[in-house]
Amino acid sequence: MDPLFGPLFAPARLREAVSARAWVAAMLEAEAALAAAEAEAGVIPAAAAAAIAGAGGVDPAALGEAAVASGTPVVPLVAALRERVGAEHAEHVHHGATSQDIVDTAMVLQMRDGLELLVRELHDIAEATATLADRHRYTEMAGRTLLQHAAPITFGLKAARWLALVVRQMRALDALRSNALPLQFGGAVGTLASLGDKGIAVEAFLAEELGLPLPYLPWHAERDRIATVAATLGIAAGAMSKIARDVVLLAQTEVGELSEGARPGKGGSSAMPQKQNPVDAMSALAAARLAIALVPTLMSGHHEHERAAGAWQTEWVALPQLFRHTAGAVSHVRQLVAGLEVHADRMRRNLQLAGGTLMAEALTVVVAARLGRQEAQRIVKTASERAMRDGITLREAAGADPQIAGVLSADEIGQALNPSRYLGSSDAFIERALWSYRSPP
Amino acid sequence: MDPLFGPLFAPARLREAVSARAWVAAMLEAEAALAAAEAEAGVIPAAAAAAIAGAGGVDPAALGEAAVASGTPVVPLVAALRERVGAEHAEHVHHGATSQDIVDTAMVLQMRDGLELLVRELHDIAEATATLADRHRYTEMAGRTLLQHAAPITFGLKAARWLALVVRQMRALDALRSNALPLQFGGAVGTLASLGDKGIAVEAFLAEELGLPLPYLPWHAERDRIATVAATLGIAAGAMSKIARDVVLLAQTEVGELSEGARPGKGGSSAMPQKQNPVDAMSALAAARLAIALVPTLMSGHHEHERAAGAWQTEWVALPQLFRHTAGAVSHVRQLVAGLEVHADRMRRNLQLAGGTLMAEALTVVVAARLGRQEAQRIVKTASERAMRDGITLREAAGADPQIAGVLSADEIGQALNPSRYLGSSDAFIERALWSYRSPP
Amino acid sequence: MDPLFGPLFAPARLREAVSARAWVAAMLEAEAALAAAEAEAGVIPAAAAAAIAGAGGVDPAALGEAAVASGTPVVPLVAALRERVGAEHAEHVHHGATSQDIVDTAMVLQMRDGLELLVRELHDIAEATATLADRHRYTEMAGRTLLQHAAPITFGLKAARWLALVVRQMRALDALRSNALPLQFGGAVGTLASLGDKGIAVEAFLAEELGLPLPYLPWHAERDRIATVAATLGIAAGAMSKIARDVVLLAQTEVGELSEGARPGKGGSSAMPQKQNPVDAMSALAAARLAIALVPTLMSGHHEHERAAGAWQTEWVALPQLFRHTAGAVSHVRQLVAGLEVHADRMRRNLQLAGGTLMAEALTVVVAARLGRQEAQRIVKTASERAMRDGITLREAAGADPQIAGVLSADEIGQALNPSRYLGSSDAFIERALWSYRSPP
Amino acid sequence: MDPLFGPLFAPARLREAVSARAWVAAMLEAEAALAAAEAEAGVIPAAAAAAIAGAGGVDPAALGEAAVASGTPVVPLVAALRERVGAEHAEHVHHGATSQDIVDTAMVLQMRDGLELLVRELHDIAEATATLADRHRYTEMAGRTLLQHAAPITFGLKAARWLALVVRQMRALDALRSNALPLQFGGAVGTLASLGDKGIAVEAFLAEELGLPLPYLPWHAERDRIATVAATLGIAAGAMSKIARDVVLLAQTEVGELSEGARPGKGGSSAMPQKQNPVDAMSALAAARLAIALVPTLMSGHHEHERAAGAWQTEWVALPQLFRHTAGAVSHVRQLVAGLEVHADRMRRNLQLAGGTLMAEALTVVVAARLGRQEAQRIVKTASERAMRDGITLREAAGADPQIAGVLSADEIGQALNPSRYLGSSDAFIERALWSYRSPP
Repeated sequence: MDPLFGPLFAPARLREAVSARAWVAAMLEAEAALAAAEAEAGVIPAAAAAAIAGAGGVDPAALGEAAVASGTPVVPLVAALRERVGAEHAEHVHHGATSQDIVDTAMVLQMRDGLELLVRELHDIAEATATLADRHRYTEMAGRTLLQHAAPITFGLKAARWLALVVRQMRALDALRSNALPLQFGGAVGTLASLGDKGIAVEAFLAEELGLPLPYLPWHAERDRIATVAATLGIAAGAMSKIARDVVLLAQTEVGELSEGARPGKGGSSAMPQKQNPVDAMSALAAARLAIALVPTLMSGHHEHERAAGAWQTEWVALPQLFRHTAGAVSHVRQLVAGLEVHADRMRRNLQLAGGTLMAEALTVVVAARLGRQEAQRIVKTASERAMRDGITLREAAGADPQIAGVLSADEIGQALNPSRYLGSSDAFIERALWSYRSPP
Repeated sequence: MDPLFGPLFAPARLREAVSARAWVAAMLEAEAALAAAEAEAGVIPAAAAAAIAGAGGVDPAALGEAAVASGTPVVPLVAALRERVGAEHAEHVHHGATSQDIVDTAMVLQMRDGLELLVRELHDIAEATATLADRHRYTEMAGRTLLQHAAPITFGLKAARWLALVVRQMRALDALRSNALPLQFGGAVGTLASLGDKGIAVEAFLAEELGLPLPYLPWHAERDRIATVAATLGIAAGAMSKIARDVVLLAQTEVGELSEGARPGKGGSSAMPQKQNPVDAMSALAAARLAIALVPTLMSGHHEHERAAGAWQTEWVALPQLFRHTAGAVSHVRQLVAGLEVHADRMRRNLQLAGGTLMAEALTVVVAARLGRQEAQRIVKTASERAMRDGITLREAAGADPQIAGVLSADEIGQALNPSRYLGSSDAFIERALWSYRSPP
Repeated sequence: MDPLFGPLFAPARLREAVSARAWVAAMLEAEAALAAAEAEAGVIPAAAAAAIAGAGGVDPAALGEAAVASGTPVVPLVAALRERVGAEHAEHVHHGATSQDIVDTAMVLQMRDGLELLVRELHDIAEATATLADRHRYTEMAGRTLLQHAAPITFGLKAARWLALVVRQMRALDALRSNALPLQFGGAVGTLASLGDKGIAVEAFLAEELGLPLPYLPWHAERDRIATVAATLGIAAGAMSKIARDVVLLAQTEVGELSEGARPGKGGSSAMPQKQNPVDAMSALAAARLAIALVPTLMSGHHEHERAAGAWQTEWVALPQLFRHTAGAVSHVRQLVAGLEVHADRMRRNLQLAGGTLMAEALTVVVAARLGRQEAQRIVKTASERAMRDGITLREAAGADPQIAGVLSADEIGQALNPSRYLGSSDAFIERALWSYRSPP
Repeated sequence: MDPLFGPLFAPARLREAVSARAWVAAMLEAEAALAAAEAEAGVIPAAAAAAIAGAGGVDPAALGEAAVASGTPVVPLVAALRERVGAEHAEHVHHGATSQDIVDTAMVLQMRDGLELLVRELHDIAEATATLADRHRYTEMAGRTLLQHAAPITFGLKAARWLALVVRQMRALDALRSNALPLQFGGAVGTLASLGDKGIAVEAFLAEELGLPLPYLPWHAERDRIATVAATLGIAAGAMSKIARDVVLLAQTEVGELSEGARPGKGGSSAMPQKQNPVDAMSALAAARLAIALVPTLMSGHHEHERAAGAWQTEWVALPQLFRHTAGAVSHVRQLVAGLEVHADRMRRNLQLAGGTLMAEALTVVVAARLGRQEAQRIVKTASERAMRDGITLREAAGADPQIAGVLSADEIGQALNPSRYLGSSDAFIERALWSYRSPP
């Protein structure tokens, strides 16, 4: 990602996980581990493996330029390694492997380590949302459906839903990290033929060397695993989007229930002095869109025969970008929830908007106990409409309705319209979300 | 899906699983189960529950027209149910639920049942590919990378890779079916407030009634589960694409290694009498593309507050379409592999194309044992190029090369160029794929 | 589209334009025109052409079932036509054409007619937004950036921006209709070989017969035209999304500046008596998402050789769906703007939110004239922050600031903070939008 | 794009057009032009404009880091400019503009210049394919539908179809460049309010200064123009994909009709000495996939109110990436066609595959003249099937068929099966494609 917009979309430590440097390091790690495994299997001399392991780094930019001709960075990487280790060991470099073994394994290594960073960020979000859920368990606010006031909830319940959402992402990505990303090692066409009868042994040693699961078969052209990584990242990005969008909406000038924590210089405008823009939420939304867009291209299955012409090469760019953008979304949401300012007073005040008609369902329940549900719905609908039309409160409109007033005292109407008495199972749901987070998966 | 192209893309029994009829049946099932659960919890009379359960079907088209005004089919569905059960029970219909509870649960029920059908289709594919893997264990063919001959494999190995790919999809979809799709029940804003202190009890009875997992919280606006279903379907569609594309490529006139089994009238052309088009593969490819396209729109997380304005409604169309298209891809591949004709002779003959230069790596391995690997690569590359340029075989070119002829007899060259001796760990990989399929997950 | 959700997403007359019935009618029209052209060119007898033209309709569902074997509905369509016209004329049916000639031309015909309907709907939207732009030229409201109050605009300006957006879509789709969709006629492989030396003549007569542009070459496998139709539809859907989203946001309970016009039963909820959901906007947003998702799959260029195996077949489903969903979005926005209720009082009242700090930039301009721009920005920023922090108005905070009070009287401050004096070139922009709509393109 | 994979996917001069450096230069150009326009309108002193124009460059990386807080690079860019020009002129920097004015105009400037480069590359492709079309006008080859031999074409006709496809892209992108990308200038909320009554004048001078079309209105939140750029790029990428895929398929070992021109080191493998991989085609396919994936995210219309929170920021990354990947695809296809090796002998030889049954339609035409079309189709189908089943030629099978032999001599059969006599209107089509390219649009 470029120096201009890169930092805005994801912090350096997450961008680094899939940088050109990380790619080269992982490819070198794969080559070194291969040599070690082959030494262990008696296929190449131990001295060669040692020389390869000690050959040192390669400049990504030089590799990039050299890769244009061969269409893969592994050809010049192997050439560079051979030069480094000298004539004696040169022939033992990359022995029995194909370019894709190295590139795929390097991609797996980066994902494994990158996912760990991502899981940690998600853990921080979970912790912060758990705190919010607990602290705002009784902070009433408007529940909104189709962006209209619907019925009361608590901010704790909303935070608990965020928490449960984040915990699911954290666990899904963590499961990926440990199970879904195995070694790739198959040689030219997935038979390990150039290793004769040592293929299986080298494969096992190599998996151990790298700490990667051993797959049943090489998977050069069956890319459902890559698609699964892509999808799980995309879903996590979408989850971040949900939280960020809620924050943007609740931070609107007209709503004012949440604001992003202030940092010096944060959220200012080049034109408007009063602006405090929700820039973390905005950046998370942008990053998530970028991430999700890349998912289908990693899902197509257009990998011909034993190695694809095009679909595989797409992954080299798309998967790191997808990781980076997801990481950007996650990281912005982490900052967002860490500094989130909750304006509980405004939440409570907003419950009174539109004459407090969001309590119409609650009133219906009470009236229904006396007059039957269908009649209650009709009466309360009329009262609600009158309240909204005439700019009075639902309480006033209900008190003025002869049928309602006939069955409920003014006090009873007031109690029926008290949001804190109409929260149903909110508390139990918050408990469950916290329990699910705190108990082992 | 329309009557003209619907049958072509997916067979009726799979299309039916998410048809308008299935939708209505599932929504009625959800309403009936809700009433039963509420009767059990003492919230509504048992007689009402019985009346609701016995209310009978509703015409999808009438519902569809009536849904335009309210923006959801549940409003007219509830109206229809109330009319059916009569004044006495009307108020107990849909009690405490919101439209989304019914629509989401109906979607979950359809997916659960639909996935079962899909898993069965995948099982048939697995069985057929397992048979192919076993039967063609020693059927040599060209391994191709970037659509160029690379080195030999066996068709059994290719089938084993398909098998492993299909088994992963089968298990992923089966796992979804049992774990990922829980009940949706939260009332207007996810608090179950209109059920007072009975919400949790009704929720539990309802989950049991429908045989669905109980979620920690309602998930009206946290849609990662839907995204996961979408992604898993999309990945399965992509997997079908891989198999179908291999078949299309291997069925090319110039390759001729596979053909789709003939059925009367199948694959004919309106213009060309000789055509035997790979129509199952073609239809699978088309269906898979359609499926995958829909994934990102189900992943966006743009679900505002407690219920989305737009993103949720998108799911009503996108998820069934995604299911249908995936089912189409799966079903065409099932037919494809069931009738697949394997032309083993042609596979072996094609190994000789381009002078048999796909054995160059194999020859390198043998030469390398005498002259070192780097020298061997150089020599064999020269011989390969000469073979391709002069239209002779690699065997001839190798025999004519003084360095190779200096270390290998004509017989040794011939053995080095025998594909059946250069299959590496193919057999072990086939075994592993079969084992993984036959052993419990 | 299915009977349950179809009506909700698009009205019947637009759905019909790409229905199975429309497909069959258009394919029959293509076959009849082909026969007529061939009769004119002396390739087949005039009597055969007459018989083909009079052969009558074919049942889409029967065709759909029969298409499964051949992979295209044209094979059974031609068989049905041949049976209808009898032995005498049978051989003249579909003479010299390939299936794709018929399917593509039928798609072109449907698009041409469908686009006309769409352009008409867009014209209605343009007319309605032009009226809004003119009528609300001086209706001040908050301009919002990143969903925060920024500076004042008028609702007329917003409507003028919608108008200009809609006019661009209308003209783009109209241009498509007349130029971008030519005849497809090439025979088996795009050479018209089976017509001998009459190919070019038949092609010209056929284009005239159908009123379609003549392309330079058949385009069986070069699908940029289809991609352009798809993209233009997708962009129009995105444009609808912009308008619908603005409406959803302005209809929020907390904002209350717009509401969708009421229709009986419209926007009600199954649980909440007070709800007036913005269902047209919601449906437009959902439909637009569905439309846009399909664009890339029609853009891929994966059309092999002279006819694709998969990518072409994808179009049969994807393009009509894309049209239908775009039509749905357009049609819902048409209803939306037709009935839109503008709450000008609420717009003006909302300008006072957050202490009227959206006038901070305006105040800066006036203060800058006395104290320089950078100093003015600093001072006004401080005053704005104070206003927001202390819950006072910017007017109060400005009056209490010694520097501002030192250079501006209370009256001058008041004038500087009057939104109606800070509308810049709004009026000119509105004029331009109206002019652009009313003048010929 | 990163140093490792960047060069592989697109050459430096095309990557540079949308690099961080290009972004900063274009933003500075926009600020300088703004100052010049304002000086011309008498809004700021000419000396300030001169100082701003001479302020010099800014380091993209420093800007990138500083942009994290404000969420836009314009805030630190303006700060840097103000520091550079000193206290005297500082207040005149960025006067009356909003961040989006600068970012959008910078994006427009980059696109305008970048598209010119792209059009030139496409022109080279057009020239090369025109040459191929002309030179191979009579080079017969198999026409293939669904990847099966269908009927003969010439390679010239295929190249002519590529040519027409490329010419359409070239003209579409050129039209974009001149018409579709206007100035963006509206100030905070699109009213130019802070410029008082000078807004319109400054806008006109600014458009002239930058050589950009003047839009009817600012378009901060109506992004159909960006979507159109995205779509036109995506369609061009798809067009490249078509050509690249044809080449990959025709370069298959089994087909051997085309190969990519050799360059030293090009297309080698790390494992297989004989490999000559079609790396330009492969890279073009990969780049095109990456490009197309980004289109829908730029089409969504989710731009809230007067400036979007998320959707706009997405464009900063997505549009340059889309340009870069399209440029990569175009550039690889340019290299591809420039060096393309056409194996005319192999093309002719392949016509004989499958017993030359691709001439079945041609034979049908001749037999139909004697026996009627339906009978002819039946007989030729039988003969074709026999040829394929028994491994004889269609000529032999036809000669052995009593009905065919009854009406055609062996010589006549031979002539009917001569591909060069069954090319229909190919020549005319090639002429038209060349004419369309060479005549002015």
